[in-house]
Amino acid sequence: MMVINKKSLTDQVYTMLKEKILSRDVELGEQLNTREIAEEHGISLMPVRDALRRLANEDLVENKPRVGFFVKNFSEAEVNDILEVRKMHELYCLENYFNNIDREVIADLKDKFENGHKKYFTSYDLKLHKEIILAADNDYLIDSYLKMINHYTMLFSYLNYKRSETSRQEHIDLIDCILNGEQEKATEILYRHLDRVQIAEDAEIRKRA
Amino acid sequence: MMVINKKSLTDQVYTMLKEKILSRDVELGEQLNTREIAEEHGISLMPVRDALRRLANEDLVENKPRVGFFVKNFSEAEVNDILEVRKMHELYCLENYFNNIDREVIADLKDKFENGHKKYFTSYDLKLHKEIILAADNDYLIDSYLKMINHYTMLFSYLNYKRSETSRQEHIDLIDCILNGEQEKATEILYRHLDRVQIAEDAEIRKRA
Repeated sequence: MMVINKKSLTDQVYTMLKEKILSRDVELGEQLNTREIAEEHGISLMPVRDALRRLANEDLVENKPRVGFFVKNFSEAEVNDILEVRKMHELYCLENYFNNIDREVIADLKDKFENGHKKYFTSYDLKLHKEIILAADNDYLIDSYLKMINHYTMLFSYLNYKRSETSRQEHIDLIDCILNGEQEKATEILYRHLDRVQIAEDAEIRKRA
Repeated sequence: MMVINKKSLTDQVYTMLKEKILSRDVELGEQLNTREIAEEHGISLMPVRDALRRLANEDLVENKPRVGFFVKNFSEAEVNDILEVRKMHELYCLENYFNNIDREVIADLKDKFENGHKKYFTSYDLKLHKEIILAADNDYLIDSYLKMINHYTMLFSYLNYKRSETSRQEHIDLIDCILNGEQEKATEILYRHLDRVQIAEDAEIRKRA
């Protein structure tokens, strides 16, 4: 039986490009050539342009009028800005919704951090931080966090920041504090952890500059 | 000399509708009739639709496929969500950037709160809260705040919430704390003030429901 893809061409190109951007397939600041993408997939220019415009709306792509579309690039200041907004969201939720964090999900993540494969580390990491945000049960807060975390994921893949044993241990410590109801200690670990990530990424960016 | 308006038709319709929505000219949840708007201004449907789509992107208008465009409406839960995200931003900035708040602007606002006309109260109010956010000097944080404050302004106009003498005094007290460098007291006043606004608006919403 023929599989019919019901998603519009624009949707498909959008999803494909977004995955490329959020993984490590295209460089920060790289031009995305509309014509090349269209030819490569044997489609017309229109859905490619529409997909690129949608990505520009999400701030993952920059549309320079009369020049073209480029993967978003980040200055050092922007990286720090993004990390700070992340910190604001997570600390607020940890402080105000500590008791609403889903302990079952967290316990399951602990097992994954301890026994899972390293290559899934990033996804466990994102899931843990997201669980803290979900505890607030506030759609506006979640939206605002997810928009920012997209940029974060993008940066993160590009920076190719090596996940150290320290980072793994910090996540496990944070989980233990949540499971044991030690709110103050959890806040302290999260604060230190996010600061350390910031310093590590600053160093990476300077190295690449 | 003929004045040539260089803004595109879409831009003009967009600005006009946005002003209508953010002031008190159309009701929350009211349908925005594309054809009527086009006829009223003697233009075609296309720029009206484009403007409405842009407003939908900003979440000020809801696009119900095959039904039409409606001014966004807010459930009680959404109102609380918006107010909480506002609180998160303002408390974070007050806590971390207290000393960066522009004292000159604040002193000028104090004078306006004390001697200015009541009808400008809302604009002084927004300006004071915005100054606290600007102190962070973080473009991402500012963007995220401004997106939310648009919804806030919209709600605020609709609710027609009577600005009480209490509220004016709270703003003046907050300014005094900032000018005197009393950070803890400032945080306390801001927290109480935002909670009080929340309760007042909840009551307004229930009354209208």
